[in-house]
Amino acid sequence: MARNNRQTSPETEFLATYDASAFEHPSVRTDVLIFSVSNSSAENWRRSDKKWFSVLLLRRDQYPEIGKWNLPGTFVNNNETAVDAAYKVLRSEPGAHGDVYLEQLYTFDAINRDPRTRVFSIAQMALVDKNKIQYSGQRDVKWFNIEYDNDTLLLHNDNLTLTEKDLAFDHAVIIKTGIERLRNKIGYTDIVFDMMPPEFTLGELQQVYEIILGHKLIPAVFRRNIAKKVVSTGKMRTGSGHRPSVLFKKK
Amino acid sequence: MARNNRQTSPETEFLATYDASAFEHPSVRTDVLIFSVSNSSAENWRRSDKKWFSVLLLRRDQYPEIGKWNLPGTFVNNNETAVDAAYKVLRSEPGAHGDVYLEQLYTFDAINRDPRTRVFSIAQMALVDKNKIQYSGQRDVKWFNIEYDNDTLLLHNDNLTLTEKDLAFDHAVIIKTGIERLRNKIGYTDIVFDMMPPEFTLGELQQVYEIILGHKLIPAVFRRNIAKKVVSTGKMRTGSGHRPSVLFKKK
Repeated sequence: MARNNRQTSPETEFLATYDASAFEHPSVRTDVLIFSVSNSSAENWRRSDKKWFSVLLLRRDQYPEIGKWNLPGTFVNNNETAVDAAYKVLRSEPGAHGDVYLEQLYTFDAINRDPRTRVFSIAQMALVDKNKIQYSGQRDVKWFNIEYDNDTLLLHNDNLTLTEKDLAFDHAVIIKTGIERLRNKIGYTDIVFDMMPPEFTLGELQQVYEIILGHKLIPAVFRRNIAKKVVSTGKMRTGSGHRPSVLFKKK
Repeated sequence: MARNNRQTSPETEFLATYDASAFEHPSVRTDVLIFSVSNSSAENWRRSDKKWFSVLLLRRDQYPEIGKWNLPGTFVNNNETAVDAAYKVLRSEPGAHGDVYLEQLYTFDAINRDPRTRVFSIAQMALVDKNKIQYSGQRDVKWFNIEYDNDTLLLHNDNLTLTEKDLAFDHAVIIKTGIERLRNKIGYTDIVFDMMPPEFTLGELQQVYEIILGHKLIPAVFRRNIAKKVVSTGKMRTGSGHRPSVLFKKK
């Protein structure tokens, strides 16, 4: 006769008979804000060195809210964390492999934010260097340049302009929350460098700060404040239409 | 014959047949870090004006982890937000009615953090003035003074000392995350005043900053930095064992 060697205790007995299905259960997703910085497209030659702060969106090809644009995301399975799920999203939709800066932004939980069922979204913010991304090309995936001022969000690229009503669910709120978090954090952290190539001029770095913050900075003040975060590579950038400039890297 | 006036569309048809039960569902809780500041107990007469930074804990009277201490919290129902649920907790366990400062801290989602089932906890941080709280007295509810240094957490009151192993689930991690958030935020926000009585001396306010930060501040520097946040009431505090001091309030 087999002997049951399993130790039992009131705790293990409680857990063995615990019936999670006796309670109502919501769904939990993660939606991923993927921010990057880029030059405007080559066609727009007159402003070819203007940089943009941009976010990646997908056009929904399924109900609900078919045809609207949303952040890439996925439901979180019971055997993975929200971060695991976000890395799956980053690898599949924008094709970002390897190290990506990712932080939890906020959990959005308005009762009717999704018409399917009760859905909590653990929103996360990723900062990427677009040069490291290979697109799958299989879906309607686009970068949109961000203009955000006085609580009004405008997203555009060469072909499309979106306002908040063109975004699915509460994703306009998620995007605005992420922009505000990033504007706050670039002052006291190093995360801006996650959106930069390894080498850059101080003018380029200042432009990136300016497009994220949405306002101009005074060069002398910027250079004094940034000095502790960067170091010269000793190399120069020369090129048509530019004065030669020293290339820096993150310290 | 009744006529069906309901407008149908592919979207409403999709939603009418959407079966959320086809997917695995987790549970979502909120756990509430209730922080406050207090004088040490009257019995301890020799240090009667020493202040402590403290957190409210409940001793678990149910499985799992019976006998350990945890943060007050509750599962979030499908018809309420995490904030709704947190206010329910604040009213029932510590008996805090009315305005309480509350902010979302972080969503904790380690796969095995709760032995019952997959449980996401949207942790929230509340800051209270203990004088405004009436205890229900029905459960084993206690304030614990916090000592947190070099990633080591010690919680104590007149009768008990707890280390991390005396805390249920991952609540030690939640408490440490909350302390770090608060230490960060008291520098650049006004939230410290949510734990203060309406009138206070600058010495008392400095003590509160010091016990939260876990280190001493230089009085002259503190007074210069705090000047823009407070205003004199014109009144004086006089009392045995104290020099008379000007009472201030939040500007």
